[in-house]
Amino acid sequence: MTPGTQPPAARVTSLDVARLANVSQSAVSRTFTPGASVSEKTRERVLAAAAHLGYRPNILARSLITGRSNMVGLVLSELSNPYYPPLLEKLSGALQAQGRHLLLFTVPHDQDVETLIPRVLQYQVDAVVICAGTVSSGMAAACARDRRPVLLLNRTASHPQADHVLCDNEDGGRQAAAALIAAGCQRLGLIHGQSGTMTADLRARGFLAEAARAAVPVRQADGGFTAAGGAEAARCLLTGPEAPVDGLFAANDLMALEALRVAETLGRSVPQDLKIIGFDDIPDAARFGLSTLRQPLEDLVQALAAQLEARLNGAPAAPPQVLPVCLIRRASLGAA
Amino acid sequence: MTPGTQPPAARVTSLDVARLANVSQSAVSRTFTPGASVSEKTRERVLAAAAHLGYRPNILARSLITGRSNMVGLVLSELSNPYYPPLLEKLSGALQAQGRHLLLFTVPHDQDVETLIPRVLQYQVDAVVICAGTVSSGMAAACARDRRPVLLLNRTASHPQADHVLCDNEDGGRQAAAALIAAGCQRLGLIHGQSGTMTADLRARGFLAEAARAAVPVRQADGGFTAAGGAEAARCLLTGPEAPVDGLFAANDLMALEALRVAETLGRSVPQDLKIIGFDDIPDAARFGLSTLRQPLEDLVQALAAQLEARLNGAPAAPPQVLPVCLIRRASLGAA
Repeated sequence: MTPGTQPPAARVTSLDVARLANVSQSAVSRTFTPGASVSEKTRERVLAAAAHLGYRPNILARSLITGRSNMVGLVLSELSNPYYPPLLEKLSGALQAQGRHLLLFTVPHDQDVETLIPRVLQYQVDAVVICAGTVSSGMAAACARDRRPVLLLNRTASHPQADHVLCDNEDGGRQAAAALIAAGCQRLGLIHGQSGTMTADLRARGFLAEAARAAVPVRQADGGFTAAGGAEAARCLLTGPEAPVDGLFAANDLMALEALRVAETLGRSVPQDLKIIGFDDIPDAARFGLSTLRQPLEDLVQALAAQLEARLNGAPAAPPQVLPVCLIRRASLGAA
Repeated sequence: MTPGTQPPAARVTSLDVARLANVSQSAVSRTFTPGASVSEKTRERVLAAAAHLGYRPNILARSLITGRSNMVGLVLSELSNPYYPPLLEKLSGALQAQGRHLLLFTVPHDQDVETLIPRVLQYQVDAVVICAGTVSSGMAAACARDRRPVLLLNRTASHPQADHVLCDNEDGGRQAAAALIAAGCQRLGLIHGQSGTMTADLRARGFLAEAARAAVPVRQADGGFTAAGGAEAARCLLTGPEAPVDGLFAANDLMALEALRVAETLGRSVPQDLKIIGFDDIPDAARFGLSTLRQPLEDLVQALAAQLEARLNGAPAAPPQVLPVCLIRRASLGAA
């Protein structure tokens, strides 16, 4: 058995305090209970004894005094997208190293992320991290009114008191188009993410701008960031009366992997007839030789954790931190 | 924007209470702050106004009064195993429907789950759910001493005050052997999970018992539940001077999928030369035609959530709940 990591002080109990103060254990409990009745004299003796022994009431009680709970609310969804589990694991690890823990709020499939925020704010979390759904500036304002820093991971809310850590989605789209064009593609296809989300919009914008610059035509279809949507969009772009596309960019790997499979079903050879690039670099991307824009997960999480620490130490909201993405060339681009 | 779901009462602020009580906002704050100085008369006026308006101090403060935080500590690791993200998503959803949220404690790769428990117990969680690592009866006892129900998901700790919800691991192993033998396999291979874990041991025990009953020989190798370990174990069982195995059971899908890949590399045809069965039914199992013992994730989570609710309503620990697993026949067993 590995022994516990708590210093001995943590083992001081309310009974120890009661003995030293020469009061009942109940008096100690009442001293630390809001609204409970306790005489001024008893209260003073209890507080003196508690200070002497280094007695720590539980973290909740302490948080009422320090104003800190060491909990961070995390709003997320879509654990079924393989991009999220490693992110959650890294984020939990980074905050745990700061002595903080994540209180989880998952957005049900039929609900808006906004409906969860009042619930999050009911808990005494020190800050809120949002990496799900679309975030309105009103939501960020609600957190700010409550004096809780709100940090957005790959999300934006145009509110001056929200912190943003994101990867360079637009440049990723640009790199994808440039790589496909450099590889000789002449008819590009773009599978959009969920319309209205910042990540989907920026990735598409960068891709379309670069294609337009090179005067290469682009056909587009909506994949909604889901596997099923990606498959449908790929079928749409790879069939039909027009000359089929020979270079495809999907706004996430989940859709790009489906495009790979659909291409195989349709007898299109990748990378000879068709080159494909995704976005994220989820574990299956390497497994299936999918080229992709790799998100710097570790760096995103470290930047978020550092910004959280700064905010909790009184720093104001920082300008958005935009981290670079990197094109990983694999078989789907003809890399060895 | 969808409006918040909070009833109007939740929007009552300490300022409203201060106005009604005709005291300062600071007096309201001090009334609800342990150890803060406030006169008896002021305190009474504040409490009366708060009761009249339905003012709710935050959940933390309330938890000091009710003894309930509506938080459940979750100890987990291995989000990199695709079995866990859907489990986490379902569990979070089920508890959220009960008005509870998960406070996350992830076990670092180099640490024992035991080292986290003192930290978990510092937070005022109503209960602890453990689905990581090996759990000693001492750990369960520590939670019980603290009067927190401890619930183990696919883990065991021989402690009368711990609740257990698990799938029938031993019967799963038995079903795997029976299916391979019924399909004509004559030389079986077993890829063990992490030795010393209950799931690994029970799955192996069931498999070996059924093979022994049918007098079919079994070669064994340790895969440690990891992809790399599974690949190594598969190479070991599929090569060498002895007649190669023609039926393989891996104690989880992660290892079984690696075995499929290794078999392909070695030029073994699945299912003609070799039949393979895994355990869990992770999403990739269907994708790759892997036969497997499906864990009833939804039922496991619902059983755990119901048992949690019962414990928090005063019920004693229940006998272990063992839910059946179901063999899913796919291409790796020759199913259409």
